[in-house]
Amino acid sequence: MSVTIKEIADICGVSHGTVDRALNNRPGISDKTKEKILKIAAELNYYPDFRARSLAKGTTKTIGLVLFDLYNRSFSQLTNAVETESRSKDYLVNLLLTDKCIHSEKEAIENLISRKVDGIILFPINQGEAFESYLTNLNIPIVTICNKLSDKWSFVGIDDRSAMKDAVTYVAGKGYERVVYICPPLAYRHQSNIYTQLERFEGLLAGMQQCGYTEEPVVITEKDYLRALSRIDLKASKTAILCSCDLYALETMNFLKDRNYRIPEDVGLMGFDNIDVLKYISPKLTTVHYNVEEMGFRAVDALVRQLETQTPSSTPLVEYKIIQGESL
Amino acid sequence: MSVTIKEIADICGVSHGTVDRALNNRPGISDKTKEKILKIAAELNYYPDFRARSLAKGTTKTIGLVLFDLYNRSFSQLTNAVETESRSKDYLVNLLLTDKCIHSEKEAIENLISRKVDGIILFPINQGEAFESYLTNLNIPIVTICNKLSDKWSFVGIDDRSAMKDAVTYVAGKGYERVVYICPPLAYRHQSNIYTQLERFEGLLAGMQQCGYTEEPVVITEKDYLRALSRIDLKASKTAILCSCDLYALETMNFLKDRNYRIPEDVGLMGFDNIDVLKYISPKLTTVHYNVEEMGFRAVDALVRQLETQTPSSTPLVEYKIIQGESL
Repeated sequence: MSVTIKEIADICGVSHGTVDRALNNRPGISDKTKEKILKIAAELNYYPDFRARSLAKGTTKTIGLVLFDLYNRSFSQLTNAVETESRSKDYLVNLLLTDKCIHSEKEAIENLISRKVDGIILFPINQGEAFESYLTNLNIPIVTICNKLSDKWSFVGIDDRSAMKDAVTYVAGKGYERVVYICPPLAYRHQSNIYTQLERFEGLLAGMQQCGYTEEPVVITEKDYLRALSRIDLKASKTAILCSCDLYALETMNFLKDRNYRIPEDVGLMGFDNIDVLKYISPKLTTVHYNVEEMGFRAVDALVRQLETQTPSSTPLVEYKIIQGESL
Repeated sequence: MSVTIKEIADICGVSHGTVDRALNNRPGISDKTKEKILKIAAELNYYPDFRARSLAKGTTKTIGLVLFDLYNRSFSQLTNAVETESRSKDYLVNLLLTDKCIHSEKEAIENLISRKVDGIILFPINQGEAFESYLTNLNIPIVTICNKLSDKWSFVGIDDRSAMKDAVTYVAGKGYERVVYICPPLAYRHQSNIYTQLERFEGLLAGMQQCGYTEEPVVITEKDYLRALSRIDLKASKTAILCSCDLYALETMNFLKDRNYRIPEDVGLMGFDNIDVLKYISPKLTTVHYNVEEMGFRAVDALVRQLETQTPSSTPLVEYKIIQGESL
């Protein structure tokens, strides 16, 4: 590994303190000595030991990022943005994935705590009073993204309820008589934090009521949602399938194409997220757009502001809009 | 922040060493005392300070991952695999993106060195003797992925040359008279490490020669490759467009569809990578598949083996195969 300050001091024939002054650009040293020390340090590949510095300064300039996985495009776009923004602010990202396992999430948080990260950006899957009290006792700045916990923590996200209400209002405006809603995570509502999904679902119900639908939506929460979909007579009435995220919509589109349903002539389809790969999909998927990179930037900003001011900062919700495709 | 060992010792009325024995499960302490200390530590939310431990043990159980970005699906799949495998081996991933900037890459490496990561998984964009000597002097275990540097470092990748040779042989077998090859990174061959792309290009030339093509391929290296493509009369002879990665192929597919070219009737199209979103694309893209997750797993395995044995370990190349779609 790289050379130590002591070794540089020995080679230059100066004290440990003098080397420290040169490397940290502090006064009390002649330009000539400083130059010599910096030259030797460069030649010997000296890199400061961040661990020692962080022990002294009480900061590691490190942000922990805890989220499900990188398979959903939204999450990789988000991670890219968090890393870019953190780097621009001189923070390093420690990435931990949870695979949606509530135990992995706690392990991830404790790992980050033991490594003394300055703060954590968390897409929480745990919930409830016990978890909130657990987080409070950790006494570390946390910014929550997508799934809200409570007002005790900064939250970065969109108004999911309002967005889905707008989405179903858009569907209603196209004359669809029946709404099929695909959202498998709803089945886990008592096991894990699905705040985002519950908000979207509430928005769906409120929107349908407001638009005068007299029938409830057909809600599919089965993990094998395509199998559940296959049991529905999609042509019985003018049907729109609304999916709680684009990935479900893409799978559903393949399912419909395989069965020779024409989209939107036979059945309408709408997603949510506007993931970047949609531009390669035909027919163009109608969906809800929000700037997921902006969410990543804001999460880092909120966390760094909190680190500087020692108080959680409020962050405005990220804007959203309906993207009109060809699938409705 | 969390409580220190000294504070636990004071509360329990024992020595620092006794608390240390209890927390680290070492002998020389009664079960009763140990139980009491662990109970107090849990109540006070004690988490070991990894920094102090790592200073003492000379290891941080941390792996640095340095790559371009997470926009190409391959990279996010790769990152997911690296994180999962690292976590299963008790290593934490520090993620640093370079945006394909040779300076960012060095900054990333130096950041990781100063934080004393145990080793680095590097998708290098620098190259040449000076860079190799720079890396050697850092004296840290490095596993290179995708872009090879030299045999001095473990390399995880596929046989890109052979894969592209097979790809163009497949194209030839379909009766295509002319090959258009899209690979913008070739324009940067003197500025950055494009090993993977050069290997694929060499494979293309070798394959075409072996298949008896008398004309050279039309090689597009412009950044605005679609504009360059628009200047080619694609119907002049039976043409296949071969792309050095799926993302170019997907952009090209949109370009062709917009101009009412039928794929493959008017022009053939082939990609490379088999990124996971291809399953939603029609017509199905013919491409080269390799298991990118497997690459991530092997990179972590090779690095951890090297950390344990102190010698670079050789890793077999990852297998590849042609995926027959509908686009050729």
